[in-house]
Amino acid sequence: MAKVLIPIATGFEEIEAVSIIDVLRRGGIEVIIAGIDSESNNNLIKGANNIVIETNLDIKNILNISSFDMIVLPGGWGGTTILSQNIQVQNLIKEFDVTKKLIGAICAAPFALSKAGVLKDNLKFTCYPSVEEQIPNSSTRYIDNFKVIQSENIITSRGPGTAICFGLYIVSILISNEVKNSLKKGLLADFCD
Amino acid sequence: MAKVLIPIATGFEEIEAVSIIDVLRRGGIEVIIAGIDSESNNNLIKGANNIVIETNLDIKNILNISSFDMIVLPGGWGGTTILSQNIQVQNLIKEFDVTKKLIGAICAAPFALSKAGVLKDNLKFTCYPSVEEQIPNSSTRYIDNFKVIQSENIITSRGPGTAICFGLYIVSILISNEVKNSLKKGLLADFCD
Repeated sequence: MAKVLIPIATGFEEIEAVSIIDVLRRGGIEVIIAGIDSESNNNLIKGANNIVIETNLDIKNILNISSFDMIVLPGGWGGTTILSQNIQVQNLIKEFDVTKKLIGAICAAPFALSKAGVLKDNLKFTCYPSVEEQIPNSSTRYIDNFKVIQSENIITSRGPGTAICFGLYIVSILISNEVKNSLKKGLLADFCD
Repeated sequence: MAKVLIPIATGFEEIEAVSIIDVLRRGGIEVIIAGIDSESNNNLIKGANNIVIETNLDIKNILNISSFDMIVLPGGWGGTTILSQNIQVQNLIKEFDVTKKLIGAICAAPFALSKAGVLKDNLKFTCYPSVEEQIPNSSTRYIDNFKVIQSENIITSRGPGTAICFGLYIVSILISNEVKNSLKKGLLADFCD
């Protein structure tokens, strides 16, 4: 069974996080929601629009990544700032990269990939409009006319309105195109590629 | 400030509930998430894809609806079955209707409106494909080629892929078309009308 780690921190964008988790689980992927500093709050994390979701565990309990196929970061500036500064999250992102595993980020979160040094200068990416201004050397590699961009092991997307499509793309890579197409129909997400 | 009541029950569809809450709050609407039988579980409710969200209060604490402008039901068959059978929720839906307040439902949830008798035979509606088969006299009034349908005080929508558009439509009615258009742009939801 494919397994994906989704770290969430206070101020995460709720549509993005929940759409990704929902679509991946519909696709048969095991999703582990890992909270940043969630232990002191009963494993609950509050999003940018005051929607509180329960994590499966605190990120401190992720001791190695061998069982995971991918890490995916939801957006929201509050959450992204924390993911960009938290040493354990940054180390995890680097470890997924070094071991050639897939790494995903949507909206503001590609900034956290840039901070970890995994959004290398030869890679194309997309993100929420204007976030690319915070990412070095973006002028030739930022793509704004696709909902999802894959460049080597890095898969990026743009914002709340592309989150379902981002989830579907990940399902197509980790499971199959057939399952992705079936989910797309079931979700009534005809606006996704 | 406009105020909307969103009842959620075990098995609710997470993309739908969270997209609606997120978009309405972005639009400046006060959203109260009311759980069904949530008190025994620290106000936590688990959705259809095992995403757990925290409610603001239990539905038992909604003693009157005078401060609310609208009630909106997210879908998911598990949640819809409970909303269709819970006497307090059914009475609340009827009370919103009798007082000519707005009533919204997406995906399977129009079935819960039908159970409450507020999806009257003269009203057009939409819902998740095939759910209309459970709704009396649907053949002449079920619409399948629009993401959102308003007929008198009843606003309905189709599924996860239309949930952002449903939220935006509600913002256009409760706040303004200008705010809706601004949110649509910010959400990158160009697929909504």
